[in-house]
Amino acid sequence: MITKNQVKYIQSLGQKKPRDIENRFIAEGPKLVNELLTAENCRIVQLFALKEWRDENPNTGNLTEVIELSDAELEKISQLTTPNQVLAVIEKIQWKNDPETKGNISLVLDTIQDPGNMGTIIRLADWFGVKNIFCSADCADVYSPKVVQASMGSISRVRVEYTDILSWLKENNGVRIYAAVLDGKDITKMEKITEGIIVIGNESKGINTEMLKLANVQITIPGKGKAESLNAAVATGIILSHLV
Amino acid sequence: MITKNQVKYIQSLGQKKPRDIENRFIAEGPKLVNELLTAENCRIVQLFALKEWRDENPNTGNLTEVIELSDAELEKISQLTTPNQVLAVIEKIQWKNDPETKGNISLVLDTIQDPGNMGTIIRLADWFGVKNIFCSADCADVYSPKVVQASMGSISRVRVEYTDILSWLKENNGVRIYAAVLDGKDITKMEKITEGIIVIGNESKGINTEMLKLANVQITIPGKGKAESLNAAVATGIILSHLV
Repeated sequence: MITKNQVKYIQSLGQKKPRDIENRFIAEGPKLVNELLTAENCRIVQLFALKEWRDENPNTGNLTEVIELSDAELEKISQLTTPNQVLAVIEKIQWKNDPETKGNISLVLDTIQDPGNMGTIIRLADWFGVKNIFCSADCADVYSPKVVQASMGSISRVRVEYTDILSWLKENNGVRIYAAVLDGKDITKMEKITEGIIVIGNESKGINTEMLKLANVQITIPGKGKAESLNAAVATGIILSHLV
Repeated sequence: MITKNQVKYIQSLGQKKPRDIENRFIAEGPKLVNELLTAENCRIVQLFALKEWRDENPNTGNLTEVIELSDAELEKISQLTTPNQVLAVIEKIQWKNDPETKGNISLVLDTIQDPGNMGTIIRLADWFGVKNIFCSADCADVYSPKVVQASMGSISRVRVEYTDILSWLKENNGVRIYAAVLDGKDITKMEKITEGIIVIGNESKGINTEMLKLANVQITIPGKGKAESLNAAVATGIILSHLV
């Protein structure tokens, strides 16, 4: 059973403001929820689950309240087109220590607004061992349901910070900045790096010119065809696969 | 002015069956439509446009009927969340000659159902100069509005064929087949190729086992993190950037 107030509360977490106030977000589906249940830095506060999921997952820890509900009730709170057994209300992820750019590869995202792209980039960062992503304030919110679902659990392993990227890049002390542009150095001919900040811009507008000035190296994915640009997530994947 | 029958007709082209019967599809927005207007193998039959687009594009050729409409009318026929000046009804693209795998790089897609991924893969093929994509029958339709919009004009340069992939691969005479899997040869360490058939599978299910048996080389994108898989479009981009 779920109360009207619970329904309202969970639906509100589809929006950024309530998520920020409550410091919580939602995640759905057995695969994602089970992965987050075992993630060290992730505290699941409430689980709303069908009986079948509950029967298969008896151990959800002492701190997690589990509420069993019907298909119809799950449909009411789900953000998915096809609700999938379980929905978790989770505290925003806690990270120990400050994110460190020295000795690491970091990603900087300038105005990546599509939640699917954002989620895919988080998964890519995870795949290639990139620990930190710094986003301009107008990027999609990492805790929005679409980003959470697209990131497939990688949000518990990759830290996403929102900041004034331009000031942040200016204050960066000595780590080389690589900016993805249309006419830079061919990434397929570059040496691999173990430290660096890779800046990815918005597909249609590219990277802010002020930011470009701060870049040490401008990099490009060479193409033979006539396509004008690549999807931002795809470009990020290709760049990471060559540089990292 | 647009008639009720025209509205119905255009809306019907949102569905595969009417598209196949009529041999037509739709494309929207000035950027995409203008690109297709100048594409050699693309015949635009009708254009539904706001006055502002018409004024800026007086030359649309003799064979194209142009119908001016209001914002409200465009909204009725548009498949976009934000209708954008112009909608074109286009004949399915005509290709000369049969697609040739000898001496070329070809892509094979097994069960890529997400239209956004499909469109992105077509754009990627265009970027890397891949001319032909062979799809299993259960892949997203290249002429569905979401694929057309995501492909951004690349559908006029990259040929997409639907076929029984397994039989087709069996009959392929001697061109090496590369299959993307989770534990194959590291693509970052492979030599570039100028001929080959690259098989990309569905993200969750991977490549059909019968197809895998036909592969000459199994290839993999090495990862350090814990992410279980990469988005199919991203994986295609990374593979092409290393192999082609």
